[in-house]
Amino acid sequence: MEQYDTIIVGSGPAGLAAAINLKIRRKRFLLFGSQRLSTAVERSVRIDNYLGFATITGPELIKRFKQHIEKAEIEITNEQVTTVYPMGDHFSVSTSKNLYQSAAVILATGASPTSLFPGEERLLGAGVSYCATCDAPISKGKTVAVLGWGDEAVGEANFLAEIAAKVYYLPVKPHKAALKDSIIPLTGSVKEILGDMKIRSLQTSEENIELDSVFVLRESLPPGSLVPGLEAKDGFVQADEKMQTSIPGLFAAGDLTGKPHQLMRAAGQGQTAALTAAAYLDELRK
Amino acid sequence: MEQYDTIIVGSGPAGLAAAINLKIRRKRFLLFGSQRLSTAVERSVRIDNYLGFATITGPELIKRFKQHIEKAEIEITNEQVTTVYPMGDHFSVSTSKNLYQSAAVILATGASPTSLFPGEERLLGAGVSYCATCDAPISKGKTVAVLGWGDEAVGEANFLAEIAAKVYYLPVKPHKAALKDSIIPLTGSVKEILGDMKIRSLQTSEENIELDSVFVLRESLPPGSLVPGLEAKDGFVQADEKMQTSIPGLFAAGDLTGKPHQLMRAAGQGQTAALTAAAYLDELRK
Repeated sequence: MEQYDTIIVGSGPAGLAAAINLKIRRKRFLLFGSQRLSTAVERSVRIDNYLGFATITGPELIKRFKQHIEKAEIEITNEQVTTVYPMGDHFSVSTSKNLYQSAAVILATGASPTSLFPGEERLLGAGVSYCATCDAPISKGKTVAVLGWGDEAVGEANFLAEIAAKVYYLPVKPHKAALKDSIIPLTGSVKEILGDMKIRSLQTSEENIELDSVFVLRESLPPGSLVPGLEAKDGFVQADEKMQTSIPGLFAAGDLTGKPHQLMRAAGQGQTAALTAAAYLDELRK
Repeated sequence: MEQYDTIIVGSGPAGLAAAINLKIRRKRFLLFGSQRLSTAVERSVRIDNYLGFATITGPELIKRFKQHIEKAEIEITNEQVTTVYPMGDHFSVSTSKNLYQSAAVILATGASPTSLFPGEERLLGAGVSYCATCDAPISKGKTVAVLGWGDEAVGEANFLAEIAAKVYYLPVKPHKAALKDSIIPLTGSVKEILGDMKIRSLQTSEENIELDSVFVLRESLPPGSLVPGLEAKDGFVQADEKMQTSIPGLFAAGDLTGKPHQLMRAAGQGQTAALTAAAYLDELRK
């Protein structure tokens, strides 16, 4: 298994600032995220409060961020992190493709969804899943639905179509979906995920569909579901002024730590998290 | 007396980010600081971890900051803030020239001095002063010394020379000092400020000088001396994740809140302080 000093989850301003500072501190780290860096920044028409750029568009700022990490020789690993397991003296980080090990982890996944679907939290692990790749084996020959937010979800749905007997796809936000022919597209909105001890059906605004699994594939995961045992409050990870969470070696930065959701705040927290993590690593190796 | 929504003390990255965000939120504010913005930034040979600038020199980043505040039509008021008095529902802010009133205050004065001179804290108000303009009347016909860090201190010393009988000037850090002829320049370093209930003399590495007052004119004041009653720990102002201090309506951002002393952290905290202050002001006016 590949071992690292630190794993950074998320490639928005917080994750990037963390990476740049870890690079300067010569730590061995992985940065998980998207090559697009941050869709939230990308979609900003005009940003007036990023100190140093009197006014800049989101795409232009993304370009500046990309130039910065290229110059610093930082690479982004495009794998979806599904779970971060605290193992006492290190962390096991599983992605859609691999398993990694690191001494410290910085969570910078952005704002988590403001609300979960009714039934989602209760049936998590009982038919509700956040990772198609991880839970594919149990989907063999079954009926499943994918609730998707974008390209990543479409890819997972197409993968599931090779394994499951029947796959439904519901785009939660409107997006282009190049689905395999065998996948049944759904319309309408999600009302509830139903079932008692185990999932039974998906209730949309249009119909009720009996099934065995629902894959909820948001762009970012609720923090509590990413790290078992992590303290969260009102959907936000609790971190102190050094960006330390309730779990030693686990740091958090950016929108997932609370409001205001702002770029400089996120970048500043990413920087702080990286330097606190570096001090933590140095202490570990004493 | 001039009244404002917010007064920002300090024109480094934290103060500037605060000002830019208050401007966007259409608050009436004053930004106290130096036209040079930040000597710490200005003196940086190379900055690699300000996200968005792959690599930039300190003077170049200062130029970008200046362009930003000019574009935002933000002006810097070049007066030294000497005391911020919490008055319950507002603050009285006194500078070397004027008295101002505001509903909220954001402290962004940078890292405070790591150590005070022996005797300094004990004799504060008993012969030790941080403001020549404020305490000039009591210097009439007396012997005083100015411990200076730069231009501002030289100006104060020259002003004191018109009032006091005898003025000594000791440059604590090396700097050009265009002193009036009547001022006696000192060399060496400060060892101790001596006296029991009242100041008696200044002990330098070279000599012991009997005097009535010592003016300690640092570029930034220790936070506890700037705001009576403000909680500090190890020389740093205690602020929560919203940048609120122990005094309602008083916010702090940047290096004075603790380490690591880093630009993005400071700017991010400045942004957060401004948005928390804006919410505080909106709540006040409900």
